[in-house]
Amino acid sequence: MSDYPKFVEIHEEGPREGFQIEPGPIPTAEKVRLIEALAETGLHHIQVCSFVNTRLVPGWADAEATVADFKAKPGIHYTGLWFNANGLERALAFRDKLTLAGAISLTASEGFTRKNLNRSHAENLAAMRKQTALHLSHHVPVNRIGVMAAFGCNYQGDISAAQVVSTVADGMAIAAENGTRIEVISLADTMGWAAPHRIENVIGEVRARWPEPTIALHLHDTRGLAVANAAAAMRMGVAQFDSTVGGLGGCPFAGQKGAAGNICTEELVLLCAEMGIDTGIDLDHLIEVGRMAEEIVGHVLPSELIHAGSLDAFRRQAA
Amino acid sequence: MSDYPKFVEIHEEGPREGFQIEPGPIPTAEKVRLIEALAETGLHHIQVCSFVNTRLVPGWADAEATVADFKAKPGIHYTGLWFNANGLERALAFRDKLTLAGAISLTASEGFTRKNLNRSHAENLAAMRKQTALHLSHHVPVNRIGVMAAFGCNYQGDISAAQVVSTVADGMAIAAENGTRIEVISLADTMGWAAPHRIENVIGEVRARWPEPTIALHLHDTRGLAVANAAAAMRMGVAQFDSTVGGLGGCPFAGQKGAAGNICTEELVLLCAEMGIDTGIDLDHLIEVGRMAEEIVGHVLPSELIHAGSLDAFRRQAA
Repeated sequence: MSDYPKFVEIHEEGPREGFQIEPGPIPTAEKVRLIEALAETGLHHIQVCSFVNTRLVPGWADAEATVADFKAKPGIHYTGLWFNANGLERALAFRDKLTLAGAISLTASEGFTRKNLNRSHAENLAAMRKQTALHLSHHVPVNRIGVMAAFGCNYQGDISAAQVVSTVADGMAIAAENGTRIEVISLADTMGWAAPHRIENVIGEVRARWPEPTIALHLHDTRGLAVANAAAAMRMGVAQFDSTVGGLGGCPFAGQKGAAGNICTEELVLLCAEMGIDTGIDLDHLIEVGRMAEEIVGHVLPSELIHAGSLDAFRRQAA
Repeated sequence: MSDYPKFVEIHEEGPREGFQIEPGPIPTAEKVRLIEALAETGLHHIQVCSFVNTRLVPGWADAEATVADFKAKPGIHYTGLWFNANGLERALAFRDKLTLAGAISLTASEGFTRKNLNRSHAENLAAMRKQTALHLSHHVPVNRIGVMAAFGCNYQGDISAAQVVSTVADGMAIAAENGTRIEVISLADTMGWAAPHRIENVIGEVRARWPEPTIALHLHDTRGLAVANAAAAMRMGVAQFDSTVGGLGGCPFAGQKGAAGNICTEELVLLCAEMGIDTGIDLDHLIEVGRMAEEIVGHVLPSELIHAGSLDAFRRQAA
């Protein structure tokens, strides 16, 4: 039995994830060039920057300049990322250009929360309660729960589906207290622990408890299983994925300095195209943009497809 | 519905595929070092060389020296590859050390047969008829049909399942004429055209026609979908795969000079391990050998896993 979707919605995070981790500096004009090129491929959701502490993430010291400079194309949702009140305030300055939305961002692993955020899960819940209220007070919707390390954790090992469900339940409680409705539950394989069975198990349990919200996946290709994981999720009807062009990004976490980044947008689009699932994206055009991304960062990116070329190019030659 | 196998048999082809395509030269002693290291990981099938025209494939000019030099471990099937009478003769010199077996090697794409072998399909059938008889006359079993370009072709485009069935039927006719029984049908995604639906479709059609032989897959990761394709095949009960440690190899065919090689053995073993499928292989040990392969060829290999490290290592730390 399979329940493949007819359309898969892809949220491109290459600029944000990629430029954050590159040793750089990458000129603002190059960031703008990539964002504008991505907008021409048929993508409708592009995360363009991080409003984060510029001391910790120098790659995004030019977040404001980048957002100010790119030419927005109508019909595309340009988004940003932030983690605190200061980041929200910076984002609010661009509420006409960016699609602003908050998330209740939690982690299924207490070990990761402590190492990454220097907080306990309870402290993180308190912070999210406050942040949700703050977003709503600024009329920024909070309709998404994000769960990091939902499939395993370098600091804590395997994460059970029950632990993910409990984490989502904590997020749902915060949403209920604030009178906001969760439309998307985003599960992140932050450190590359997922495999198809685990994907099926976790998504099955979350969906059994909350049948209504859209389930979105944020997959990393740390150990080469990301596309197989996406295929397993699609088979269950999952129809929303984050990805990065060229496989931009990487993994800053324990013992994985050389590891691959997010699932490649091109490979995800190829998977969909060959499965007869629409994404609205022109794959040949996207491959060109993947090659541009490689040129901008100045090193080989993990995407195999941008090096091999698309099947449609060969189909046209063979015809 | 799924029909996952309990055990997956992996045929390691890293030495043969990898050293054939590297610009090299790689010293014989290094080839021997890799072969002997692979034998300690739990692998039971290792393809160690190609007995091919040394003018065309200088990387295997030392095939004889390599086979003579490695120390064989009892219980392991060491195999070689050859395409003609001369290659068979060279292999026969090592029949005490190598497990010799012939294959009826066909291609589902007439375009590929012409470009790669400079023959028509009919001419290739005649050659295979002759070669099968020659093998049997030397008491070398021929129990395998191999079909290249079974999922698509750079020269011919999409390949239908009916075309694959017709190609296997041609091979079955040759086997019947020679009174030999086909035990394995090996389907190769020679140029990286497969996707999960296509895998299911082709395997379904071949199996419907010939329910008894084992179906084996030889997958290339040319466009990043190899692991997803392996997962789709395993879901149908496919339990035999060729692969290469580190993702050694590459794709010498039209327009894909920079493309990735075979599916990585480590990523296939990881997929199996996380799905609860036994391979008999020690993954942590195999990852070490993947890193050795990278050191031997002197450049980064496509395997993500050898760069990220295994999950079990993190599990032990977290425990």
